[in-house]
Amino acid sequence: MTGRAELPSVVSIREVGPRDGLQNEDPVPTDGKVRLLDALSRTGVRRIEAVSFVHPKAIPQMADADEVWARASRASGVRYSALVPNSRGAQRALAAGFTEIEVVVSASDTHNRRNVNRSTAESLDDIAGLIDLLHSAGATAEVIVATSFGCPYEGDVDPARVAGIVDRVVADGADRVAFGDTTGMATPRRVRELVTAVRDRQPDIPVLLHFHNTRGTALANLLTALELGITEYDASVGGLGGCPYAPGASGNVATEEVVHMLHDMGIETGIDLDALLEAAALAEELVGRELPSGVLRAGPRSRLTAV
Amino acid sequence: MTGRAELPSVVSIREVGPRDGLQNEDPVPTDGKVRLLDALSRTGVRRIEAVSFVHPKAIPQMADADEVWARASRASGVRYSALVPNSRGAQRALAAGFTEIEVVVSASDTHNRRNVNRSTAESLDDIAGLIDLLHSAGATAEVIVATSFGCPYEGDVDPARVAGIVDRVVADGADRVAFGDTTGMATPRRVRELVTAVRDRQPDIPVLLHFHNTRGTALANLLTALELGITEYDASVGGLGGCPYAPGASGNVATEEVVHMLHDMGIETGIDLDALLEAAALAEELVGRELPSGVLRAGPRSRLTAV
Repeated sequence: MTGRAELPSVVSIREVGPRDGLQNEDPVPTDGKVRLLDALSRTGVRRIEAVSFVHPKAIPQMADADEVWARASRASGVRYSALVPNSRGAQRALAAGFTEIEVVVSASDTHNRRNVNRSTAESLDDIAGLIDLLHSAGATAEVIVATSFGCPYEGDVDPARVAGIVDRVVADGADRVAFGDTTGMATPRRVRELVTAVRDRQPDIPVLLHFHNTRGTALANLLTALELGITEYDASVGGLGGCPYAPGASGNVATEEVVHMLHDMGIETGIDLDALLEAAALAEELVGRELPSGVLRAGPRSRLTAV
Repeated sequence: MTGRAELPSVVSIREVGPRDGLQNEDPVPTDGKVRLLDALSRTGVRRIEAVSFVHPKAIPQMADADEVWARASRASGVRYSALVPNSRGAQRALAAGFTEIEVVVSASDTHNRRNVNRSTAESLDDIAGLIDLLHSAGATAEVIVATSFGCPYEGDVDPARVAGIVDRVVADGADRVAFGDTTGMATPRRVRELVTAVRDRQPDIPVLLHFHNTRGTALANLLTALELGITEYDASVGGLGGCPYAPGASGNVATEEVVHMLHDMGIETGIDLDALLEAAALAEELVGRELPSGVLRAGPRSRLTAV
């Protein structure tokens, strides 16, 4: 019998379905992407990762990023962000008007090489230049550290290695960092170890966590991070995204599962769950497969069965 | 930033797939049930809910309980239990040699009436008699309180009502109580409220928790209960069982998801995860549908992808 860690009263969700979600699904027509973005902008969510500016041959799912963004009805209370892989993408994102931009590096060398044919250290050098480019254009730079809780090729990733990456990008001017559980290898223990390792060395950098539900632990991980005072989380409407390493397995945690749990715990998100469930139903329609969202399937706990 | 609740170092899992799981699936042949029980007995799990002794017209899935149990290869280190609805079932369970027997009552009147056409209070009167019957035969009696975290017909269930039920069954001699999240309405907040309410009034009665993953919260709920010092949990191999209130939705939390998370947190269960995954694969084969188990689908986090 032990005491209770005090939990935050407000959590900031970044909805990543339109970018991270759709990028890992079969291509969806431009019109559908715009409809999904607009539906999400009406949910009350305060941050949306809208698109990525990547080479269309590498990621055909995002080939129409400029058009999607131009046609989207942007809500005034929402911060929209874009992901870029390099300076060419950064220039496109800036030209499109984005002022919050994300770049990615993998904590494990093997994963980074598989993604971009570079070592982690080489990518960090590139990112230093990207941060300067973004800052000189008045945008902020977030560094997403993929495979932060484990690598599908290498296995465990030492939290000290991740903390060292954070040291480097903070020194290079990163405005914020995010830790991606790229293939669902995080557990409450790994979350505690990583957050503690990073906070010990960089107590001031804003931290966002990105969990996958591949092995069922997403909300347990989120609860652990809440107890550690972390208040920023990615989530993907409907659980859009899948897991590229395990066909048929879940990827991104579903936004409605996160919001449903947080609201029942008295933690505010600003999101209207009913509006979010409408967006999740649209997401399911757009990708044409059943999405791995328990709250979409069963409804919120407040939805009663007639006697 | 807050401190960490000390977690238990050992957890006792009761595997309920053969009974609670299969009772909520399409009927499986007797031979398959015996194979599943035997596979589970080889995993190192220390407790298995093997069968229920119910009227075959009410629950045809358990019509062959006597034969399943007679043919099973029982492992010496495993405690096997059976569920019974009434004195006729109790007599059958005792005759079959069971010494750990479970009875059920729903915390919400509406759910109890839908199940057994009686109020909760009327069922509690019946249970008092059943406890006496079991004790006089040298068996222990566990009372499972269904809909403890919410009722699909009534909505929220007051923890004080559940605690009152516990007061009553403890006074009537119950050896242990279990709280069922029958339709997946529990969240970390509800777990904390219920466990606290019960412990405040009955600190000595052994408590077991039974979580469903219908809305994705099962492992977050389990983590919360661990922080409160609860060390006994039900789980169902492969997530066998479904959710009778929401077609296509998940029911029982998958044993391998529980074990996978606990082991990575350094918490012992005695279970061999590889053997458990073999049993989960068998369960999937027996019911002929994809079971909702992330660890079965993606493998444990230690299973690496070849570069």
